[in-house]
Amino acid sequence: MSNQQTVAELGEFGLISAIQTRLANSNHQKVSVGIGDDSAVVSAAGSQVVACVDVLTQGVHFRLDWSSANDIGRKAAAANLADIFAMGATPTALLVGIAIPDVTPVSWVLELADGLAQEASRVDVQVVGGDVVKSESIAISVTALGELSGRKPILRSGAKAGDAIALAGKLGYSAAGYLMLSRGFRSPRVLVNAHRAPEPAYELAATALKATSMIDVSDGLLSDLSHLASASKVQFHIDSATLPIPEDLTAAASAFNGNALDWVLNGGEDHAFVATFSNPLEVPAGWTLIGSVTAGEPGVFVDNQLTRATGWDHFLK
Amino acid sequence: MSNQQTVAELGEFGLISAIQTRLANSNHQKVSVGIGDDSAVVSAAGSQVVACVDVLTQGVHFRLDWSSANDIGRKAAAANLADIFAMGATPTALLVGIAIPDVTPVSWVLELADGLAQEASRVDVQVVGGDVVKSESIAISVTALGELSGRKPILRSGAKAGDAIALAGKLGYSAAGYLMLSRGFRSPRVLVNAHRAPEPAYELAATALKATSMIDVSDGLLSDLSHLASASKVQFHIDSATLPIPEDLTAAASAFNGNALDWVLNGGEDHAFVATFSNPLEVPAGWTLIGSVTAGEPGVFVDNQLTRATGWDHFLK
Repeated sequence: MSNQQTVAELGEFGLISAIQTRLANSNHQKVSVGIGDDSAVVSAAGSQVVACVDVLTQGVHFRLDWSSANDIGRKAAAANLADIFAMGATPTALLVGIAIPDVTPVSWVLELADGLAQEASRVDVQVVGGDVVKSESIAISVTALGELSGRKPILRSGAKAGDAIALAGKLGYSAAGYLMLSRGFRSPRVLVNAHRAPEPAYELAATALKATSMIDVSDGLLSDLSHLASASKVQFHIDSATLPIPEDLTAAASAFNGNALDWVLNGGEDHAFVATFSNPLEVPAGWTLIGSVTAGEPGVFVDNQLTRATGWDHFLK
Repeated sequence: MSNQQTVAELGEFGLISAIQTRLANSNHQKVSVGIGDDSAVVSAAGSQVVACVDVLTQGVHFRLDWSSANDIGRKAAAANLADIFAMGATPTALLVGIAIPDVTPVSWVLELADGLAQEASRVDVQVVGGDVVKSESIAISVTALGELSGRKPILRSGAKAGDAIALAGKLGYSAAGYLMLSRGFRSPRVLVNAHRAPEPAYELAATALKATSMIDVSDGLLSDLSHLASASKVQFHIDSATLPIPEDLTAAASAFNGNALDWVLNGGEDHAFVATFSNPLEVPAGWTLIGSVTAGEPGVFVDNQLTRATGWDHFLK
């Protein structure tokens, strides 16, 4: 990449202009003011805005030798869009803060912008603003905005004893893909690609409007269920026999001496959705029933055994 | 700081919990859902949200030997809040993404949170969400949200020939303070502190509701006026005799062989506000008239001389 133009050669304003051109789209009905002013102005139907921020850093959330800039852009957008859907909201826009060393090729930044725009277009939103700054290592901060159109947000704290627990989307794929990559393999593609850029089941999350609580699985199923259990002050009981463990995972587990159930229970970054419903008949099509909520000291049980989540913690070693 | 607890020792969830406790405030009328769920939910009166992101990085926007964590938090919040006011909007909330090495003392992160909360409280808003991740170097990403309550946003593109140009807030202080610090001095305090954490004239910005265009001066007066001129397709004419050059600056310039006018014209990071008004009588109290807008090829003129901005570019050397 040594003969490529770097961001130091192009300069900040040239870079912003190039990104802006790359992201320029037809007018979007949700966007009043996009890139190019001091702030963006976006629809917030119902006079409430839903907002979240995730930061992805080099060496922690991605490795440049494992993931393309496009992958990283898609992953950063997906992590945030999933958080908007997990509130029962509809995404309206993304903003992005890009911190990069000045030797970064301009083409890398533009591919990152492409990846962000590509994932955003899966849910019909755009990148409406952001910031590009110099730093020693790469950090990508994405802000997602969403609207509720008068609906109430679906919180972590709404699960009640008697609720059914249901799951939408893949689990364990990112963890399995990480193991493949860390052993030097670039396949199976379905696992490796899931680690590079997850594909959250947005359309299923959007059908869960009757959920009493919801979360997206970013740290690991048990870890994120424990957040629901704590916030709702109830017990989550999972029946492991109901958990989907696809052939993709069992085959990889047997080839790599891995544990497919462990990937499903503790693997993060797939951004599946888990939700509770007061009536099993309200669980939407495409969701899988995996257990039920009971009263009691908050905790997560698998097959009646109290579990201790081993999901991802950024700082504990 | 070697005997202090590090974020690696406390862990991500412990750190988030400590930050949450530190930021916990009484219920805020603008906040429906604050820290602790997948996303925050905040008021957006008029069904539009104003949003912006700024990233501050170690060695570029701050140095740990020059600025306390509190300074950095206040600076990060101020840069973003100024962008909300520059749209003619009222801020409603902040979100923060913190990327830090795992050897960072917990106390440093909590002081950063205090700084963010302190600046936010100047305009009666709170930190409602965010993310904390591990990285090689420090990056602080702040997202500010605002509401328009049915008003139209004040854009960069609204200046018209015949408009008056006016300024609110200090200019040149941060640039002068930077020079003091880079020469190894810790005084004059008024300049050094202005570089560590600017104090934008929020309350004056909030009076500019009749402005035809507005921007906050983050890169330098000439640089930011050139953004207004380009977006509005007009010429900005500044009369240098009208620019406020306080004794603080002239004294420092004479002691340090600096140029006070250059600091005022090209110094960034003070987050003063510049706006245009269709009638000089509409310029609010506390604002200073500094020139006028004419038709013609877009550009910025000082005393009838076309200028070339030398404001800050993150990547050009």
